[in-house]
Amino acid sequence: MKQVKVLLEDQEIPKQWYNIVADLPTPMRPPLHPGTGQPVTPDDLAAIFPMNIIEQEASAERWIDIPEEVLQKYLLWRPSPLYRAYNFEKLLNCPVKIYYKNEGVSPAGSHKPNAALPMAYFNKQAGTKRIVTETGAGQWGSALAMSTQMFGLECRVYMVRVSYEQKPYRRMLMNTWGAECIPSPSSLTQAGRNVLAEHPDSPGSLGIAISEAIEEAVNTKGSRYALGSVLNHVLLYQTIIGLEAQKQMDKIGVYPDVVMGCCGGGSNFAGIALPYVCDKIHGKDVKIVGAEPSSCPSMTKGPFAYDFGDLAKSTPLLPMYTLGHDYIPAPIHAGGLRYHGMAPIVSHLVRENIIEARAYDQMKTFDAGVKWARTEGFVPAPETNHVIAAVVDEALRAKEEGKEKVILFNWSGHGMIDMAAYDAYLSGKLEAYELPDEEIERALKAIKDFPKP
Amino acid sequence: MKQVKVLLEDQEIPKQWYNIVADLPTPMRPPLHPGTGQPVTPDDLAAIFPMNIIEQEASAERWIDIPEEVLQKYLLWRPSPLYRAYNFEKLLNCPVKIYYKNEGVSPAGSHKPNAALPMAYFNKQAGTKRIVTETGAGQWGSALAMSTQMFGLECRVYMVRVSYEQKPYRRMLMNTWGAECIPSPSSLTQAGRNVLAEHPDSPGSLGIAISEAIEEAVNTKGSRYALGSVLNHVLLYQTIIGLEAQKQMDKIGVYPDVVMGCCGGGSNFAGIALPYVCDKIHGKDVKIVGAEPSSCPSMTKGPFAYDFGDLAKSTPLLPMYTLGHDYIPAPIHAGGLRYHGMAPIVSHLVRENIIEARAYDQMKTFDAGVKWARTEGFVPAPETNHVIAAVVDEALRAKEEGKEKVILFNWSGHGMIDMAAYDAYLSGKLEAYELPDEEIERALKAIKDFPKP
Repeated sequence: MKQVKVLLEDQEIPKQWYNIVADLPTPMRPPLHPGTGQPVTPDDLAAIFPMNIIEQEASAERWIDIPEEVLQKYLLWRPSPLYRAYNFEKLLNCPVKIYYKNEGVSPAGSHKPNAALPMAYFNKQAGTKRIVTETGAGQWGSALAMSTQMFGLECRVYMVRVSYEQKPYRRMLMNTWGAECIPSPSSLTQAGRNVLAEHPDSPGSLGIAISEAIEEAVNTKGSRYALGSVLNHVLLYQTIIGLEAQKQMDKIGVYPDVVMGCCGGGSNFAGIALPYVCDKIHGKDVKIVGAEPSSCPSMTKGPFAYDFGDLAKSTPLLPMYTLGHDYIPAPIHAGGLRYHGMAPIVSHLVRENIIEARAYDQMKTFDAGVKWARTEGFVPAPETNHVIAAVVDEALRAKEEGKEKVILFNWSGHGMIDMAAYDAYLSGKLEAYELPDEEIERALKAIKDFPKP
Repeated sequence: MKQVKVLLEDQEIPKQWYNIVADLPTPMRPPLHPGTGQPVTPDDLAAIFPMNIIEQEASAERWIDIPEEVLQKYLLWRPSPLYRAYNFEKLLNCPVKIYYKNEGVSPAGSHKPNAALPMAYFNKQAGTKRIVTETGAGQWGSALAMSTQMFGLECRVYMVRVSYEQKPYRRMLMNTWGAECIPSPSSLTQAGRNVLAEHPDSPGSLGIAISEAIEEAVNTKGSRYALGSVLNHVLLYQTIIGLEAQKQMDKIGVYPDVVMGCCGGGSNFAGIALPYVCDKIHGKDVKIVGAEPSSCPSMTKGPFAYDFGDLAKSTPLLPMYTLGHDYIPAPIHAGGLRYHGMAPIVSHLVRENIIEARAYDQMKTFDAGVKWARTEGFVPAPETNHVIAAVVDEALRAKEEGKEKVILFNWSGHGMIDMAAYDAYLSGKLEAYELPDEEIERALKAIKDFPKP
């Protein structure tokens, strides 16, 4: 009997998050105030986020304590198990050992509650009564619905319309956890009404939904906004994934040659990757790869530039790989990866050649996901299928090179609520989609007047 | 920080299943051949099941080895974690400690793969090429789809039509794991055609779906049938739940006063209960309670009688609490509990007053389930909501009696694919349903010519 899972007991859960900012070999460019072109100050963000979160966003402390109350809730599913994927390895028949961190064991079915719980907690501490957010596939919205419920806050979620329609169970899940869910673009905000006036049938995008959520949070007493990816503090909270993985890999005395995750805004990838980036910066030989969709290839095709995080230009200008804040990604089923930009931290690491990025088409990702489900049992989320496609790719490279490799990846969530996507794939209704070159021209136009990083 | 989970390492997984038949204080009545009225022989069952499973069905050995290949696949999610439900306890504010076994961590999201995996394995060993089965809510069908895929068998599932329509994601899940799924009643079998001729709009029932699956299995070369509950060997495979729970409770030095599970055919309840029934038979003071739906109250309202397991009378006559093999339960959302009978082992234990049964209405169960989701995070399956309602009930009794109690229950599965049921409940579209007395008269009529137990 071969050991399949490496577990950590409740008391072994990491007690601090890891902040990569403390270890970066070159400094990151600061976010800019779009009006002044100057670095944003904490006060600039105070209408959007509570001050305790703003402090973490700007922090350069290497280790940040996880509050006791957050740890206690984390224990509902954390530490998450580390798995060895023997059955998938056997199918691939390549010289690789594949380990994965199963983030699908959370109540919401993904890694998102890792960030939602502390965000709800810190908002509660700061006196927030109600959080407004956006969601793509619904993973973030449902995670925040659960977390706000647990800490006694109200919650409203603007959900990208195409996902709202493709994934009705996610809306129901948010309702079950006591949150409101509104399809975006909506007529409840000026940002939404502007889009609807021009495109009444708009499928929506994360960029639009963010604009709606920020607009409402800023204009409603007692309300604050929460973002489920991209920003430094979100990536910080997710590092618990990689910190646990390191403890678990240590237990079995194995160190990975390659660490992988799928990339939308960057949070699940960063969650597993950043503690290994720290190792790499300090001399370890480890390859770190992010997998993004070829329909929304910010890192592999977009310019590195200052751009807005949302369509209505309500965020600071962020230094990142971007397809332009006005880009509406194709309605692929991996709704969580439909974002025009990439987290500034992740973008910085790509730019500095510390990590690398690859793009995969949705057909290839579902092929990998179905093979995974039929061997390892667990049905992956469509987002997760992107990293599985990258793992397949890496395994085949190892075979070509005749090298043995240990691969570790973040299995970011399960697809039980995304079955319609599998149904579409299995019945031949999905199509490949590559970003056309003219979209890059449009992106460059969208950002041409902004400061250059 | 309070410990929430009690884990077992992979190597601590139980290596044998427990067979209660070896310890029963009074013998069970045998299943009867409907033609002769005599106890069925292994040969009578040989067209339906492979001989290795028939031997286990009739076995009186106390411990039965779990094959290495099955153990290896069990490790994909087993041992399942034992949880302390601190947050739900706090909400109830009663003098109880609540522990639960989280069977929702399996790839199919329920306890069903515990039985599906060994069934697929033993069929493979016996030369079966293809398994035909039925499913209610789809939990069993999807578990068998996954398990047959893992052991290289084909699979066809007849799914009760009302669930097929209420829960489309389950069908898609079976397809993703490579199985075929057919709504029942169907026109593919004589049993199905007979029902459709009389009731073209029949919502279906487990009894009808079983008839269809058996008919096809018996008439198709290389095919065998598999049942997801009721029979002795199914309950045997599920005992791994209770055996693990005992190890986990031992680790923290706690013994339960009450052990609970929800009851449809009886398999998840028996899974946690039977190892504790063994303790009780040997003198331990432990209360064991099964929770069934008030719309399908076989144990609390049905007679104990010989009856068929299916509508078309293709099974042996089983000694059990039954609402009559022709009963079509109301289309409640807990599809997995819509079965007219109760496992002979469970029925025997109720009859001998070793365990007790209670019935809960669907409104009360969803009320409990939503409270659970909002405190403990995990959204329970509608079936699981029945045992949660029973836990609430038991906690309130403890408060009334002024007694401290330790409750252990089987959290049989998650509800991520049952969100439409929660949506119906939250939007006021669900109704209470109690079985009318005339249904008992019908049941008595249906069984009046059968031998009396």
